[in-house]
Amino acid sequence: MTSTRIAYLGPTGTFTEQAVRQWAPELVTAAWAAPSVPAAIQALRDREADAAVVPFENSVEGSVPATLQALLEGDGDDGVRITGEVHVQVQFSLLVRPGTTLEGVRTVASHPHAFAQTREWLATHLPDAQQVPESSTARAAQAVAEGGYDAAVAAPGAGTAYQLQTAAERIADREGAVTRFVVLTRGTPVPPPTGSDRTTLVALIWQNRPGALLELLEQFATRGIDLSRLESRPTGEGLGEYCFWIDADAHLSEHRMREALTGLRRTCRDVRFLGSYARADRRPVPAPPHADDRAYAEAQAWVERLGRS
Amino acid sequence: MTSTRIAYLGPTGTFTEQAVRQWAPELVTAAWAAPSVPAAIQALRDREADAAVVPFENSVEGSVPATLQALLEGDGDDGVRITGEVHVQVQFSLLVRPGTTLEGVRTVASHPHAFAQTREWLATHLPDAQQVPESSTARAAQAVAEGGYDAAVAAPGAGTAYQLQTAAERIADREGAVTRFVVLTRGTPVPPPTGSDRTTLVALIWQNRPGALLELLEQFATRGIDLSRLESRPTGEGLGEYCFWIDADAHLSEHRMREALTGLRRTCRDVRFLGSYARADRRPVPAPPHADDRAYAEAQAWVERLGRS
Repeated sequence: MTSTRIAYLGPTGTFTEQAVRQWAPELVTAAWAAPSVPAAIQALRDREADAAVVPFENSVEGSVPATLQALLEGDGDDGVRITGEVHVQVQFSLLVRPGTTLEGVRTVASHPHAFAQTREWLATHLPDAQQVPESSTARAAQAVAEGGYDAAVAAPGAGTAYQLQTAAERIADREGAVTRFVVLTRGTPVPPPTGSDRTTLVALIWQNRPGALLELLEQFATRGIDLSRLESRPTGEGLGEYCFWIDADAHLSEHRMREALTGLRRTCRDVRFLGSYARADRRPVPAPPHADDRAYAEAQAWVERLGRS
Repeated sequence: MTSTRIAYLGPTGTFTEQAVRQWAPELVTAAWAAPSVPAAIQALRDREADAAVVPFENSVEGSVPATLQALLEGDGDDGVRITGEVHVQVQFSLLVRPGTTLEGVRTVASHPHAFAQTREWLATHLPDAQQVPESSTARAAQAVAEGGYDAAVAAPGAGTAYQLQTAAERIADREGAVTRFVVLTRGTPVPPPTGSDRTTLVALIWQNRPGALLELLEQFATRGIDLSRLESRPTGEGLGEYCFWIDADAHLSEHRMREALTGLRRTCRDVRFLGSYARADRRPVPAPPHADDRAYAEAQAWVERLGRS
């Protein structure tokens, strides 16, 4: 495993790097900080990386469009699959160059999303500092290290990455924000079920068919599968053309999931299977008694007997 | 086949006998006129008959409760199955003893349902005749033959059976009434699909589960199966306890039907499969393109491939 090359959304010091550290601490030093999500995924497609770690959704901001779009850009047969997920508690620190005091901060840089999540703290403690938007929190920290600004609102890990000091920590207005990262691999088998699994897929429905979205949901409900996430996203093919991103609480190895996928394949314009993998929260999501593999086996045996006599 | 013994709902001269004649003309003379629907079905269970023909539903009166109840009384493993159906155009004649004229009719006997379907004709042509209810139209004809009444409103076939004359024919107020009869056999294979098939089944849902009836319907809709008939009937277990009689436009040999049955078996309190058989009207009921066996085979092969890479 030590030879695994990981591509992640850089620069170094981002929450994505924290995700890599949580997922495989021994691999983080050799990981490649890709300049963008598509670049990280492309490295995987080009076999320049064995895995890619990218942000998928945030409990405050919602899904990460760049990741969703990049995942769909493959032809569906490129073998890129989600094989794991990592949850990172999002926390922010105020990072400064060694020697700078809070009182000396005139300019503070960060990503606009980070400003939005630390608004109250900044209004209380740095009411007069100028806020300068940067393309990422890590880029803001880097700029501080280079002398461009006095302070950065960034991930705690950025302090280490850029030799900055922590002037204040845990400055987010709201505790408990979590970002979900996905681990992508290419051409690897679907990980075995753990009892706490998730399947991510994208379905394109027939737009001119009334009730098509309801039919889509019924394909899961009929097989006793809960959906934990359903999000419509434009396909880019025109206004009103949507695809649906779905997280289902079941694993490809389960009969109910295979039957639901068969149903989607029959009734949808297109279906993309993005992977079955262990949930980061390890919450058990057992099949209901009427939809587990034992129930299927019993029911199928009954149907087989009907045809015999 | 000439040795097949048929039990049907008698007495001779009923519409059920007409159904036997339409289904197997060569067997009608040796058929047994059972005194009741349960008696006809019991003869099948006791191996005293090889087939039973009983009325199932009428386009004017609705379903025949005695038949539905008798079919459910078996333990579900008695092997009694619907293997065919016959539609009989319901027509009524006014039958009299030879020599009786219309003017001489003072009393007219029939089953109350037959009186209800010939009300206008009787009001116009026999306004002063006394109407006497009998247990069946054939029994009324028999009573006329025995001298009990002057005339009977009965099936045309009853005239031949009881040596009566037809004083008037086609006297129903409404043309086009049809009674559907089912042919029951025991321990025989499900007849092969014809492209115009029906599957009859009874489902008992969990009463305390909200949405259970909708779930039941979804098990069919999700697999592209149309229902031509859905009727709730009390189970006899208490007020508010219902079972659902279902005619589905598909055959047990079809993948979609086997999958729907598997779903019912998993989610219902009980399911009784009563048979897959050719429709009497021979109307083709093809599977929609997204639910035929080819669509299932393609979709299943796709799901199989997902698990491999």
